Amino acid sequence: MTRRHDLAALRQRLIDFAAARDWRPFHTPKNLAAALSVEAAELLEIFQWLTPEQAAAVMDDPDSAHRVRDEVADVLAYLLQFCAVLGVDPLTALAEKIDRNEHRFPRPGERPAPSSG
Amino acid sequence: MTRRHDLAALRQRLIDFAAARDWRPFHTPKNLAAALSVEAAELLEIFQWLTPEQAAAVMDDPDSAHRVRDEVADVLAYLLQFCAVLGVDPLTALAEKIDRNEHRFPRPGERPAPSSG
Amino acid sequence: MTRRHDLAALRQRLIDFAAARDWRPFHTPKNLAAALSVEAAELLEIFQWLTPEQAAAVMDDPDSAHRVRDEVADVLAYLLQFCAVLGVDPLTALAEKIDRNEHRFPRPGERPAPSSG
Amino acid sequence: MTRRHDLAALRQRLIDFAAARDWRPFHTPKNLAAALSVEAAELLEIFQWLTPEQAAAVMDDPDSAHRVRDEVADVLAYLLQFCAVLGVDPLTALAEKIDRNEHRFPRPGERPAPSSG
Repeated sequence: MTRRHDLAALRQRLIDFAAARDWRPFHTPKNLAAALSVEAAELLEIFQWLTPEQAAAVMDDPDSAHRVRDEVADVLAYLLQFCAVLGVDPLTALAEKIDRNEHRFPRPGERPAPSSG
Repeated sequence: MTRRHDLAALRQRLIDFAAARDWRPFHTPKNLAAALSVEAAELLEIFQWLTPEQAAAVMDDPDSAHRVRDEVADVLAYLLQFCAVLGVDPLTALAEKIDRNEHRFPRPGERPAPSSG
Repeated sequence: MTRRHDLAALRQRLIDFAAARDWRPFHTPKNLAAALSVEAAELLEIFQWLTPEQAAAVMDDPDSAHRVRDEVADVLAYLLQFCAVLGVDPLTALAEKIDRNEHRFPRPGERPAPSSG
Repeated sequence: MTRRHDLAALRQRLIDFAAARDWRPFHTPKNLAAALSVEAAELLEIFQWLTPEQAAAVMDDPDSAHRVRDEVADVLAYLLQFCAVLGVDPLTALAEKIDRNEHRFPRPGERPAPSSG
């Protein structure tokens, strides 16, 4: 895996993958939101009984590191597919959210920006 | 918002944002996995009582469209921050998962690739 | 299983079970809330790709019926243990919530009760 | 609230409540599983940034205690309604699960029971 991956190309691979297997009828916004939520819970499951020290060292064990990367991939896959079926650009959504948060939570010592809303 | 956003730049904005507000002690892998899971459930909440038709039209209403984009942003933000604290590259994780899935679920009519593992 | 089960006895069995195996240090409120959330997602996972018809028939298949009962048991187990460590009475909490909801959502044709709060 | 509450009576109140408001068409197994999962995540949300000490003291603050009881009620309400629509007895499901777990995780110093399955 030396090639660099970009989000748009991965998104297209996911869409083609589902189309080739006739999975698109299952990929409704509601089903994809449910699947995203289930995968996020599976990521949390890895950590649920760990102490903070164990949690911080989770990537040192090859099996649990693989499991973490696998669940991260599932979360991202369903997020991209959810966004694709609804026409949402997740990067723009995130950029606009960070803009709003910078306004809402000024840096310590910074004057709050005047609200436009 | 005409500039194009890229994932690496947004990831860095999130890291700087948390650092400037001294939020990093809260951003343990376990807490971020919990927060990711909570935000994914909030995205699902938008759809939980909707019919398939209502769910497909969710972006037609400006308020619910805003809510969808806001929750998508939160999910992606916590996923990127989770990956940052554990040193996981989410794009490589997804690319490798798609590779595995292409092997595991061959296209209809395609011979399964010989297993290397 | 002909004896009738009651919630208080099951709650006590769960507490004794965890105590006998020295699991109590793991049973913090936060860990139990995470585990409850994970088990609820596993219950949802059974339904995520099903049509409404398939979902309504889920108990007709012995394997999926077993899986549903197993996940219901896990959700209830973690809910009871969560309540036990925090001293919450789940039945009283539910009764009070139904009281509030009857006030908040009057039956059609019923005058809303005068608010006391 | 001095009367003692029992699970069967609360379950019936929930069913009557939904029937009187014509909410039953929304209460499909899949929707109720999604709602249960969303409420469990809202319970987790209360704890997501808390230290273990703060989490253990969550009932000392009246507002957060109320929030905890409210989310516990929502989780239990959706669990009971989910079980009602599918004909699952949650207490029997839990009793059978504890039976299986006592077999699967013998007490320390106890010989594992011979497996019947």
